[in-house]
Amino acid sequence: MPRLEFWYDFASTYSYLSAMRIEEMARLTGVELVWRPFLLGPIFKAQGWDTSPFNIYPAKGDYMVRDVERLAMLRGLRFQLPPNFPQASLNAARLALIAADEGWVAELSRQIYLLEFRDGADIADPAVLEQAVAAVGQNPASVMPRLQDPQVKAALRAQTERAQTSGIFGAPSFLTEDGELFWGDDRLEMAFAWTLDRTAAGPGSA
Amino acid sequence: MPRLEFWYDFASTYSYLSAMRIEEMARLTGVELVWRPFLLGPIFKAQGWDTSPFNIYPAKGDYMVRDVERLAMLRGLRFQLPPNFPQASLNAARLALIAADEGWVAELSRQIYLLEFRDGADIADPAVLEQAVAAVGQNPASVMPRLQDPQVKAALRAQTERAQTSGIFGAPSFLTEDGELFWGDDRLEMAFAWTLDRTAAGPGSA
Repeated sequence: MPRLEFWYDFASTYSYLSAMRIEEMARLTGVELVWRPFLLGPIFKAQGWDTSPFNIYPAKGDYMVRDVERLAMLRGLRFQLPPNFPQASLNAARLALIAADEGWVAELSRQIYLLEFRDGADIADPAVLEQAVAAVGQNPASVMPRLQDPQVKAALRAQTERAQTSGIFGAPSFLTEDGELFWGDDRLEMAFAWTLDRTAAGPGSA
Repeated sequence: MPRLEFWYDFASTYSYLSAMRIEEMARLTGVELVWRPFLLGPIFKAQGWDTSPFNIYPAKGDYMVRDVERLAMLRGLRFQLPPNFPQASLNAARLALIAADEGWVAELSRQIYLLEFRDGADIADPAVLEQAVAAVGQNPASVMPRLQDPQVKAALRAQTERAQTSGIFGAPSFLTEDGELFWGDDRLEMAFAWTLDRTAAGPGSA
């Protein structure tokens, strides 16, 4: 089964759009999907930004909201920009790493995105994350304390460093097994096409 | 006939991709296309950038080249990043404004983009622009001196200001008659869909 990595930050509006459709695309095409939550913050900081470029450049920020609204409407999704944007996504990302280890990262990630961008909840609030955990049938009392686990913290740092060394500078990003990078929800189809095409060509092909 | 405005800068790689396909799409859908050459430079400067963001953020710049290569290949186009990037597009934009007045802006714009991004020529070089003018059957000797015409200079400044007041912050951008803005070659289909949908709904519809 060919593999595709989905790199996403929970503060990212366009990652929400991809998270809501990528698993069905993987299922239909027979691609193994690897969910890779990471933090854009340190990568933006390395580019000299201390917040989202959508805040730094207001014309771009206004456009983004309208663009995501239009795309969400075409896909039958609701969308609102939550009151604090970008939201602090550190704990959500740690939670998703725990879920990835245990096989429930897809459901959890979608649930967090819906609470944030459909409902406007603040995902920096532990109560909101607890709600997401419970909604996907897991036990918040056993999961939430692990957000402070040094191993989980280190795993997220390592994941974010791997994003950076892979050339990732934004989210969502899609990384193929042969190292081809696609950036943005509007490249999701191309990422799948690339993945399937390389597989069809067989092992050892250029 | 519904109208769509195509805002582009000759230094913009993604504008090249749109310029090569937009007229055929307009013809097939019965949309009147208005070519609006402008300068991104002053808009970038207002955002605090003194060159292309693809130079300021190298990971983004490397990605852009690969992304445009991939898209060009899918569309049967050749692409290379010219030696000086971004190229000084001032004279090309003035030339396109003259051509817009006289009804040959589409052919000229495609010709300039091909010389720049297919052949790697420097469009800041007057000889390259002369070549473009001649290639579309016009007389360089009568056209080229007009690049210094104060009216042409003023028209380009006004066009760039109108871009800015319309919320345009990048290129290519597409602006509908009802003020809806679409940014990027990957929104070209949506811009046409919006234009046609509004028309189908008839005059006076929301």
